[in-house]
Amino acid sequence: MISWGDIYKVVVAMAPLYVALGLGYGSVRWWRIITPEQCEAINRLVSCITLPLFTFEFTLHVDPFAMNYRFISADAVSKVIVAVLLTAWPKCSSKGSYCWSVTSFSLSTLTNSLVVGVPLVSAMYGRWAQDLVVQLSVVQAIVWLTLLLFVFELRKAGCGLFSMAAAPSSAGGELASVESPPLKDVDGGGAEVAPRPSFWSLMKTVWLKLALNPNSYASIVGITWAFIANRWHFEMPSIMEGSVLIMSKAGTGMAMFSMGLFMALQEKILACGPSLTAFGMVLKFIAGPAATAIGAIAVGLRGDVLHLAIIQAALPQSITSFIFAREYGLHADVLSTAVIFGMLVSLPVLVAYYVVLGFMS
Amino acid sequence: MISWGDIYKVVVAMAPLYVALGLGYGSVRWWRIITPEQCEAINRLVSCITLPLFTFEFTLHVDPFAMNYRFISADAVSKVIVAVLLTAWPKCSSKGSYCWSVTSFSLSTLTNSLVVGVPLVSAMYGRWAQDLVVQLSVVQAIVWLTLLLFVFELRKAGCGLFSMAAAPSSAGGELASVESPPLKDVDGGGAEVAPRPSFWSLMKTVWLKLALNPNSYASIVGITWAFIANRWHFEMPSIMEGSVLIMSKAGTGMAMFSMGLFMALQEKILACGPSLTAFGMVLKFIAGPAATAIGAIAVGLRGDVLHLAIIQAALPQSITSFIFAREYGLHADVLSTAVIFGMLVSLPVLVAYYVVLGFMS
Repeated sequence: MISWGDIYKVVVAMAPLYVALGLGYGSVRWWRIITPEQCEAINRLVSCITLPLFTFEFTLHVDPFAMNYRFISADAVSKVIVAVLLTAWPKCSSKGSYCWSVTSFSLSTLTNSLVVGVPLVSAMYGRWAQDLVVQLSVVQAIVWLTLLLFVFELRKAGCGLFSMAAAPSSAGGELASVESPPLKDVDGGGAEVAPRPSFWSLMKTVWLKLALNPNSYASIVGITWAFIANRWHFEMPSIMEGSVLIMSKAGTGMAMFSMGLFMALQEKILACGPSLTAFGMVLKFIAGPAATAIGAIAVGLRGDVLHLAIIQAALPQSITSFIFAREYGLHADVLSTAVIFGMLVSLPVLVAYYVVLGFMS
Repeated sequence: MISWGDIYKVVVAMAPLYVALGLGYGSVRWWRIITPEQCEAINRLVSCITLPLFTFEFTLHVDPFAMNYRFISADAVSKVIVAVLLTAWPKCSSKGSYCWSVTSFSLSTLTNSLVVGVPLVSAMYGRWAQDLVVQLSVVQAIVWLTLLLFVFELRKAGCGLFSMAAAPSSAGGELASVESPPLKDVDGGGAEVAPRPSFWSLMKTVWLKLALNPNSYASIVGITWAFIANRWHFEMPSIMEGSVLIMSKAGTGMAMFSMGLFMALQEKILACGPSLTAFGMVLKFIAGPAATAIGAIAVGLRGDVLHLAIIQAALPQSITSFIFAREYGLHADVLSTAVIFGMLVSLPVLVAYYVVLGFMS
């Protein structure tokens, strides 16, 4: 059973995030401290400096030799289930398309684990929960976002699957109105797999993108450090730790502030219209957690760890997934709505999950 | 005696500040993440949101009923000594001018206590030292910066003292080359005091300026809260505390980062030339601490508290004092050099003071 005190603790942990979001929004819309043109500077500061150091700081303290591999495999199983279903969708239904499969995968599986997840789950379940969420975030950054990037590059290279999908479908209403951008070098052959020789050149592009993406960079360097430090049992000198912390401490606040700026620049909160918003929210807050519950039960998670697995799947949308969508021009408005509107509604949704799961124990 | 370990602790506390400074500098000069035009956005974020919340957070936790009033009066006595000497200077010497008296007062007495002072003195002497420095910073923000603002407004209103001083003096070299901006409504009468009726209108302007200055605002609201909370023994609800902390935690890092941006925008580090830089450094790192030592000994401080009083007087230049100087067009380049160059040289200077004072105990 969850008491009112427990719920209040969660609200206390989440409220500051909304305050920072509001400060960002208000700085542009109400107080005009920051002009719309200036927002880019703060976004760059956050995405190139603050957030990478924030990710790095968390990743550093993961012990790769003591990770909860059952928890991680539950997450992996659920993501594979979602991926299989979404790959089958365009084959079984005329409403499906591979482009929408990619976006649906993002929506239902990729979460904002560090900025929102860490304060939330540690308020709900304590320190061990925070450690598990950080472990998942490292896997997400290194494995799942890399795969997503690979799929985006595949699509950009004009892989047959996506060019098929780009053909006018009978999918009704708003789904069709969200245009696919023109594909570069469409081979048009309808071949089911990308040509073999291009695989390595695609991988090279993906790795290059990752190496230039400060956040992946931070995850990879961080986990490498964690491997070495835990293998040979040494600690980072406090002078280095302090130098990372001075900017990383700003991570949560600045990330939310910058999301607030982004919100203020949008003409409307539901950039992609109400139907697609509802579609995104269902994937994010119902399909994702349901798939995770199946995966988690399948690998044998029980009790609080099972609850945690379900709740972390209902966290708001990963910001990186939106950045990729914008860069590759694939349903960026749907993802941006999922990031912003998802953040706004996540507090009641997550509290509801917390209470319902509390009743089940 | 100070051991190598003690010195290393100080370096560990200060190094992150220089890292944040370097990140700011590098973002503009080396990596070109942020363009010179975009720096303004980050400055506004820091000066309107991050730093006021940072100041507010520290001020909140001051207990006005348990302040070390002897320590504060030592600081006040030393500032009065400096003020008397600097007021006498233009009367006794043809090289003196009231404009230079104001700038010299800033240089020798106003310090960056929260951003640089807090981590430095707590590494040197521990938590009690941090509390004392925070108390001084509150007094500086509420009393001394208000007085400085009042003097600036007096000068702007064309008070006789300053119009006399604006007359070409025989002061040689660079001192004369730093032009005074044209005075608004110079009465030219050479009257020794500002006309009586204008005193209240000046005060009104000063209070208005302070009410619009987010940092003074933060200090005044913070100390008011501290009075009420300590009088009736209640604490700030954790949801409010967390909402302040989410941005205030970014304070030190963002302030140093923004100083780094400012440094990158300067054509040269010594904006005011080497002679004036040396003049500023002597006032900052020798005259200021010497005056404080006299004040502190006069009110009877001994031991570590005396050492702390001297060391905090040698902290780098207050950023607010530079902002005022820029706003009122009075020797802004001298103050900017004191802020930047003072920051760069402060680590060795402060460590030297620490070691020398350690020998004396």
